[in-house]
Amino acid sequence: MGDHTIRFLPADQSLRVADGTTIAEAARQADVFITNLCGGEGVCGKCRVQVTKGRAPAEALAKGFFSQDQIMKGYVLACQTPIHDDLEIIIPAESRMDASKIMTGGENQGTANLPLDPLVKKFYLALTTPTMEDNVPDVERIARELRKELGWHTFDIPLDCLQTLSTKLRENDWKVTVTVARHGENYRILRIEPFDTARSHYGLAVDVGTTTVVAQLLDLNTGEVLDVEGCHNQQASFGEDVISRVIFACGKGGLDPVQQAVVKNINTLINRLVKKRKISREEIDVIVAAGNTTMSHLLLGLTPCSIRLDPYVPTTDEFPQIRASEIGIRINPRGILEVMPCVASYVGGDIVAGVLASGISEHEAVKCLIDIGTNGEIAIGNQDWLVCCSASAGPAFEGGGTRCGMRATDGAIEKVVIKDGELHYNTIGGKKPRGICGSGLIDCIYELVRNNIIGQDGKFHREREDPRLDVEDNIFEYIIAFAHETETAANVVITESDIDNLIKSKGAVFAAIKSLMDYIGLGFDTIDTLYVAGGFGSFLDIPKSVAIGLLPDIPLENIKFIGNSSLTGARASLLSKSTFETCLNISRSMTNIELSTYQPFTDEYIAALFLPHTDEKLFPSVTYAKG
Amino acid sequence: MGDHTIRFLPADQSLRVADGTTIAEAARQADVFITNLCGGEGVCGKCRVQVTKGRAPAEALAKGFFSQDQIMKGYVLACQTPIHDDLEIIIPAESRMDASKIMTGGENQGTANLPLDPLVKKFYLALTTPTMEDNVPDVERIARELRKELGWHTFDIPLDCLQTLSTKLRENDWKVTVTVARHGENYRILRIEPFDTARSHYGLAVDVGTTTVVAQLLDLNTGEVLDVEGCHNQQASFGEDVISRVIFACGKGGLDPVQQAVVKNINTLINRLVKKRKISREEIDVIVAAGNTTMSHLLLGLTPCSIRLDPYVPTTDEFPQIRASEIGIRINPRGILEVMPCVASYVGGDIVAGVLASGISEHEAVKCLIDIGTNGEIAIGNQDWLVCCSASAGPAFEGGGTRCGMRATDGAIEKVVIKDGELHYNTIGGKKPRGICGSGLIDCIYELVRNNIIGQDGKFHREREDPRLDVEDNIFEYIIAFAHETETAANVVITESDIDNLIKSKGAVFAAIKSLMDYIGLGFDTIDTLYVAGGFGSFLDIPKSVAIGLLPDIPLENIKFIGNSSLTGARASLLSKSTFETCLNISRSMTNIELSTYQPFTDEYIAALFLPHTDEKLFPSVTYAKG
Repeated sequence: MGDHTIRFLPADQSLRVADGTTIAEAARQADVFITNLCGGEGVCGKCRVQVTKGRAPAEALAKGFFSQDQIMKGYVLACQTPIHDDLEIIIPAESRMDASKIMTGGENQGTANLPLDPLVKKFYLALTTPTMEDNVPDVERIARELRKELGWHTFDIPLDCLQTLSTKLRENDWKVTVTVARHGENYRILRIEPFDTARSHYGLAVDVGTTTVVAQLLDLNTGEVLDVEGCHNQQASFGEDVISRVIFACGKGGLDPVQQAVVKNINTLINRLVKKRKISREEIDVIVAAGNTTMSHLLLGLTPCSIRLDPYVPTTDEFPQIRASEIGIRINPRGILEVMPCVASYVGGDIVAGVLASGISEHEAVKCLIDIGTNGEIAIGNQDWLVCCSASAGPAFEGGGTRCGMRATDGAIEKVVIKDGELHYNTIGGKKPRGICGSGLIDCIYELVRNNIIGQDGKFHREREDPRLDVEDNIFEYIIAFAHETETAANVVITESDIDNLIKSKGAVFAAIKSLMDYIGLGFDTIDTLYVAGGFGSFLDIPKSVAIGLLPDIPLENIKFIGNSSLTGARASLLSKSTFETCLNISRSMTNIELSTYQPFTDEYIAALFLPHTDEKLFPSVTYAKG
Repeated sequence: MGDHTIRFLPADQSLRVADGTTIAEAARQADVFITNLCGGEGVCGKCRVQVTKGRAPAEALAKGFFSQDQIMKGYVLACQTPIHDDLEIIIPAESRMDASKIMTGGENQGTANLPLDPLVKKFYLALTTPTMEDNVPDVERIARELRKELGWHTFDIPLDCLQTLSTKLRENDWKVTVTVARHGENYRILRIEPFDTARSHYGLAVDVGTTTVVAQLLDLNTGEVLDVEGCHNQQASFGEDVISRVIFACGKGGLDPVQQAVVKNINTLINRLVKKRKISREEIDVIVAAGNTTMSHLLLGLTPCSIRLDPYVPTTDEFPQIRASEIGIRINPRGILEVMPCVASYVGGDIVAGVLASGISEHEAVKCLIDIGTNGEIAIGNQDWLVCCSASAGPAFEGGGTRCGMRATDGAIEKVVIKDGELHYNTIGGKKPRGICGSGLIDCIYELVRNNIIGQDGKFHREREDPRLDVEDNIFEYIIAFAHETETAANVVITESDIDNLIKSKGAVFAAIKSLMDYIGLGFDTIDTLYVAGGFGSFLDIPKSVAIGLLPDIPLENIKFIGNSSLTGARASLLSKSTFETCLNISRSMTNIELSTYQPFTDEYIAALFLPHTDEKLFPSVTYAKG
């Protein structure tokens, strides 16, 4: 009983934990990240670790995931193994979450030339001293000046600011800096400070992604992006995808640790940014965060449970302006947090931000935004109308649900080419391969069908002679990297079942686009521009994505990467009050089609389970040699 | 050194205090009230107590207030005497603040028939369960129902309410009670509770007077006044009038104890009310408080210091809606507090409430409201215009600044008649006389001038033979009650200097009314109704008040008592959102004349220092036999 000392390798992090703590929980406490797809349910088998010193109980579950040899070597599932001894634990390469390509930039299509009018403003006021002829209340003296800058508005002022106002004005010779925030159609006074502090005025745009959290530091006096930092979303310790995290938060784990994880993330990013730019965190007055609906709920601590249950109802789609300190975010204690409005449970503020950033809602021409991850979210529209939907693509594009799938981090095979019968691959970071990430899988499938190793139905031509073609437990698989080349000393393969999963994923995304286009009664040829957004999108090979039937077959020059458009939209909203209001309008006016109850989608989905599609006329530019 | 035991008599309250604590502070801690006009500065001499056991240091200051005999008997000033011994202390009758006539009612002139539409409302909602066809966010499902009742509005919802909303709805089968408060032009959701609690829904109207605090408990479903409680404003321990309290709060005493005193008052009244009506304090959802500008600042903890200094600038004249719990008021933790808007530093929310209650702003005819206390506040107007002012009347009407003056509490002489050469008096509570209160002083002066004992200049006819006419230290005085009749065993007298003070006080009030009438260019004959408001007002003898020149000489049937119109106005605002908005309009539209810099006022004031006035034509109905 009592406490035990745990040492994690190769990170070499040690800590003391209470008896009975699971290895996964200990890792979380030590800030050591272990891959975890299922949220600690013991079903994904991705959190395998090796106990090299001390005794760990052999778990019944382990038998399903490990060979007898591995069990002898001390392999256990971190989430299922309670600690009853001092342990030394090796986290093997395939279970590590290393620094990945975190996309911190973002193209700005639609909002480049807006005048700077940030959500929070600072005004230095040198007020006139009251006289008997002009003895209006102190608040009115300030409001009168502010109206010269902002037009006729009312100015809410919180009690704590009001209580000391009189003294502040008089002790500082009526020279103060007033910080005001947009508040509905009016303004709210956040803070009144002695002297002129208007020059130091910063804001933060944050993309709260399921996988990564990215924060940009902005100078609100110039609109300039000063710096950017990103990190993995620590909520991954409670599950890789939003559904596992919701299950964790709504189960015995509770919402608190899940909320605190992302708050800790944001505080970490703030720490790094202020240190690099040599400013004080107190000088940050405002944060605009964009995330999907679940991420937004978890950030604010709103019960997320009903989001994942039919009929998929969020608590709210518009979030109240709060003081960031209310949820533990450490900027100026009176600084505010705005969270971008959402459309529905599965079309969130990240998509609203993306629609804004891509400028879809500003033109006559029909444009389309597509954000591919575990869900594929699609928005189509123009200046008059907007429709959207979300299709469950499954975890394949994010590296889940496939034998050797992994996130786009160091050691992931991200490019595959088969040329003259020879297979070539690239890994992220040039490291020894550990697995295949989403873009690598798309390459694989494309190369396999192009080289007639699989058919357009995704099945291997079993009669084919190929040293890379193998059968294990009756499942056909293709070896991308042989054991001797890899860090894990095991073959990195793609199985027929993996290919089947990928076809289902791409089929769901394509069927969603097709269903939306049919819903509005337009053909693909009317799409002026198709923007591909998000972390996964930026690694996509567009011609191959079209060739396997993930993206529609429109002229390649009309398909554009738009990067982290969630972050771009958050930044644009931070820098312009009217842009933030545009986002509210976008979220309110967008028509969301619930695909799960939309019969045409089911038909489209089945038709899309082929490479590129059962209806060849939809992909006129794509041809494969028949097997 | 160390602690000492103090026993207060006749209350028989004991407590332990630290060495060096003053007797006044010890009394405050023991909840024993000692009269105190100057706020502990040692200048009013009203806090005299007798130390009957233990040694108290003889204070230098005491010599000015006590005879050698009194000093030998242990008399000291409570505010100036530090405790260095165990003491037994008698608080003599004249220094006690006993239960007085606290005016808890109020006539309702202008707002009787308004439809019930309270500032805070409760709605029981039996919501439909979400389906795939109707899966709007939870907040929208509630807002949709509320809009059926309230029309199209937005509904702010605080984060803590939002966080648990999803669970509350689902655990309670979508049957909840929603409490909403007016919030600017929209609404704010305060609370969402399981099941139907709409029937228990209470509010509090509070008059925060300088002297007394009165609270009415209202059933917000019926508008019925359920009960009322009043008590002395505990801030009196820091000074009787607003100026002394501001000096205390802005000096070493600090604002906190002054704020806490009135909060404690309100909590005490709430305790009594909920106990009597057998409800829970949590069922009270809203408080509307009305007070003068200083009281409003002190209640909310706003620095009050600039109110008393030229050019008399308050922090604000409109107060933010807050949660009552923010300042320690114990009702429902999410219940709100609204404070009635003020006009200027010396025309407060009590007057705005009074204008509302009197209905002045609703008619074509010109009406006038007058509230007499340490300040005389006057508002005149009709449906088209409103003017107001405040005149410093001095403490005479409240029992201060005169030799035997006292508040209108037990033992105060409140009525005096001289008939057939015999003087008769009544005391409050029928007790042995301890002093004279404001209404008694007005009676005295009227009877003295009517019986030609003083001239119209307020000077005694010195040649007159009268056993009650006495000279002490060269100051003429008139004995109202002889020592053998009184509780204090000393004569209760009115001195020539007291009369002089009274004439200055009534002169200031009259001059203010006259100045306002001249400012708007109307004569007294245009006044349709003159309402006399406030605690002091209700004890006034109107014919005598006219006869000494305090009130203008208009037909007596046009002068009406309106009781505690501050409370009436607060209640009307609590019960009707549109009435609260009317108060905002009244406060914004009222023109305040600053008499301290208004030259015509000075001339009027000097002209009014005569009984009834130097210009006899202003008081055609008043005649005195010449001496």
